[in-house]
Amino acid sequence: MLQLDNFYKARLVLSKILRKTELVHSLKINPDCDVYLKPECLQKTGSFKIRGAYYKISQLSEEEKSKGVIACSAGNHAQGVALGATSMGIKSLICLPEGAPISKVEATKRLGAEVCLTPGVYDDAYQKALQLREELGYTFIHPFDDENVIAGQGTIGLEILDQLPEVEAIVVPVGGGGLISGIAFAVKSINPNIKVYGVQAEGAASMVQSLHDHKQEKLPSVSTIADGIAVKEPGSITFDTCSKYVDDIVTVSEDEICAAILRLIESEKMVAEGAGAASVAAVMYNKIPVKGKKIICIVSGGNIDVTILNRVINRGLSKSGRLCSIGLELDDQPGKLVDVCSVIAKLGGNIISVHHERIATCKKVNACILRVTAETKNIEHIEEIKKTLRDKGFNLI
Amino acid sequence: MLQLDNFYKARLVLSKILRKTELVHSLKINPDCDVYLKPECLQKTGSFKIRGAYYKISQLSEEEKSKGVIACSAGNHAQGVALGATSMGIKSLICLPEGAPISKVEATKRLGAEVCLTPGVYDDAYQKALQLREELGYTFIHPFDDENVIAGQGTIGLEILDQLPEVEAIVVPVGGGGLISGIAFAVKSINPNIKVYGVQAEGAASMVQSLHDHKQEKLPSVSTIADGIAVKEPGSITFDTCSKYVDDIVTVSEDEICAAILRLIESEKMVAEGAGAASVAAVMYNKIPVKGKKIICIVSGGNIDVTILNRVINRGLSKSGRLCSIGLELDDQPGKLVDVCSVIAKLGGNIISVHHERIATCKKVNACILRVTAETKNIEHIEEIKKTLRDKGFNLI
Repeated sequence: MLQLDNFYKARLVLSKILRKTELVHSLKINPDCDVYLKPECLQKTGSFKIRGAYYKISQLSEEEKSKGVIACSAGNHAQGVALGATSMGIKSLICLPEGAPISKVEATKRLGAEVCLTPGVYDDAYQKALQLREELGYTFIHPFDDENVIAGQGTIGLEILDQLPEVEAIVVPVGGGGLISGIAFAVKSINPNIKVYGVQAEGAASMVQSLHDHKQEKLPSVSTIADGIAVKEPGSITFDTCSKYVDDIVTVSEDEICAAILRLIESEKMVAEGAGAASVAAVMYNKIPVKGKKIICIVSGGNIDVTILNRVINRGLSKSGRLCSIGLELDDQPGKLVDVCSVIAKLGGNIISVHHERIATCKKVNACILRVTAETKNIEHIEEIKKTLRDKGFNLI
Repeated sequence: MLQLDNFYKARLVLSKILRKTELVHSLKINPDCDVYLKPECLQKTGSFKIRGAYYKISQLSEEEKSKGVIACSAGNHAQGVALGATSMGIKSLICLPEGAPISKVEATKRLGAEVCLTPGVYDDAYQKALQLREELGYTFIHPFDDENVIAGQGTIGLEILDQLPEVEAIVVPVGGGGLISGIAFAVKSINPNIKVYGVQAEGAASMVQSLHDHKQEKLPSVSTIADGIAVKEPGSITFDTCSKYVDDIVTVSEDEICAAILRLIESEKMVAEGAGAASVAAVMYNKIPVKGKKIICIVSGGNIDVTILNRVINRGLSKSGRLCSIGLELDDQPGKLVDVCSVIAKLGGNIISVHHERIATCKKVNACILRVTAETKNIEHIEEIKKTLRDKGFNLI
C-alpha cells in the first residue's frame, strides 16, 4: 500500500543526487490557461526515471545490493537503474532487445551498466531478464509497478506543492502509470482539490482502455513515436492507484505530439521526447478541461533519438508551411525549369531539391512531372508561390 | 566608465523580471575539465539580451520613457528591447532589414514592439533607425556599446559568483562584446584570479582582429551560422574593456559550432543557437587552456531558426555516421537495385532515398550510377555496409 511517509523518505534520499528542475512559466502553449512546465527532460539521465530507480535500489537490503540489480528496458528506466546502481557502487545488468537504438545502448553502458542484448523484441528481453534474475540472484527493478518506484516518481508531486502551491491541475504522461500514480497519490493526499490528468498516445492507450473496462487490459500491440509511454499493459498497483486518484486520462495523436515537440523547441528551447511532450500536446489541443486554470505539464523526458527529432522537425516544418513540395506538369522544353525556379526565388522561396520525372502519366506526351521542394515562410507564402505559378500558366498537380 | 555599483543596481532592477538560470553540471562536453553551463537560452526571450535592454530602458528619464525607444536588430536584442519596453509600458520601434527571418519579425511583434521593415541589409536598417530617432525623438538602445547595457549583461557575472564561487574560468561568446565586457568587469573586479575567455566565429572575428591590432577594426563582411555574434566591428567601450579585462579570445569553425549545438541537444536537452553554442564548441575542441579546471560556459541564447536547426542536425548526423550517402556504379539490369537494398537492410541500415542516374560518366556503357541515402548507426556501421557491398562485387564510387 502506498504511504505518504515513504514519499517524504524518498525525497530525502533523492535530495543528494537529483538535479533540481525549476518550473518554467510558458506563455506559448495555450493562451487560455496559465501553463507551467516541470522540465524533467533536464533531470539527470534525461528523464524522471532516475527518481524511482534510485530510491528503489537505495532501499534494498545489503545482501540484495551485494548481488546486484537487473532491469529490462530500452530507454529511460535503463539509464535510471544504471546511474542509480553505479552511484551506489552496485552492479547492474540491463536486458535489451537486439534492435534497440545504438544511442540508448551506449548511454546505458556509459552509466556503468552491463548490457545483455537479446534476440527478438521487448517481451523476449523481459523473459531473459527474469531468467537471469533466477540464475544470478539479481533483484529485478520493475519500471513502474513497485511501491518504492512509485514513491520515487511521486517526489515530483511533493516538489510541485512547494514550487507552485496554488496549482489547480497537473497533466502527466502515462505509460505503465508509475509517474502519474506517484504524483496523484502524493498531491491528492495533501490537497484533494488539485486535479490530476493523464495523457497517453492514441497508439498505446492501455491505461485508458483499462480504466474504461474497470480492469487491467493488455493491448495486442502498441505503436507510437512516444516510445517512453508505449506500454501494452498497466501494472496492478498503478491501475488501482489511477482508478482511485486520477481525474481523467485522455489521448493525443502522433501529429499532436510532433507539434508539441516542435513548440517546446521553438518557444522554450527545450528538447522533449515524444512521451515527454504528450502532456503539452494535450494542453495545446484542448484535450483537458483546464481553461482559465493554473496548470503544470510534466515534461517527463528528453531522450529523443536525433534521427527521429529530424523527422519530427521536417513534419512540423511542413505542417506550419515552412517547407513545401510543389508538383507541376511541365512542357518538356528548354527554359521551363528556369521559369519555375525564377518565380520561387523572386518570391523568397529557397529551393532545396528538384526532381524530374519523364515516364509518368501526364496528359500531354511531351510533358514531364517536376517536383520542387523549397523552404518557405508560412502557409500564405506557399499559396502566393502557387498562385503566381498558376498565373504564369503552369499546371500544378 | 563602468562602475561595479551600477552592476549591483542592475541586479536589483532585474531581479523582478528575470527567469533564474540555474547552472547545469555537464559531463559530456569535455572529459578533461569540469564544465558547468549557464543556460541563458532558457532566459526570457530566449537569450541574455533582455538583461541589458531592460536595465538600460529602466534608467531612462521619464521624458525619454514617454517618447519611446528604438533599436536596430534582427534578433535577440530586438526581443529584449521589445519585452523590456512593453513590460514598462513604453513604446518601442524596431528597425529590421526586409530579409529578416519571418519568425524573428513575428516574435518581436508578439512582444509588443512596432516593427519597421527597411529595404536593404542591416546597415540600411541601422541608418533608418538613426533617422527615425531624430524625427521622432525616440531613444536609441545600442545592442552592446553602452554602459548600462553592459552592466545589465554583467549581472550574469555576479550571479555566477553566487552560484559557483570556486569557478576558475568563464567562457563567453563574443559578438560586439557587450556580454563579455559585463561579465569580465564584474568578475575581475571581485576576483581577478578567475579567467575570462571569449569565443568568436571564424567568419566574424572582429574582436580578435581588433585586439590583435590594438585598435577597433571593422571587417568588410561577416559570415557565420552564429548570426547572434555576426558583428563587423566591436564597440569602443567594449573594445577597451576587453583589452583590459579579458584573458584571451579564440575562434571556432562552423562545423565546430554545429557539433556543439548537436551535443547540447543530445546531452543536455537544450536548444542553443550558433552564438550560444560557440562557448561550448571552444571547450569541446580544446581551444582554451582549461584542462583540469572548473569552468562555466555561457550558453547565451537559443533562438535558432528551426530550418537552420534541421540543417545542423543533418550535418551532425552525417559527421557522426548516423546518416550516410553511398554511390555505386551499377550494371543496369533487373534485380541489381534489390541486391543493394537487401545488403543495406540486412545490416540494419534504413534507406531513406534512392537516386538513379543513367546519363553519367560510367566506365561501362550499360551501367548507371546509384546513390542511396540511409540512416545508419555509426561510422563503423557505414564501413561494414560498404565492405559488404564491395565483397558482393559492387563498385563503390
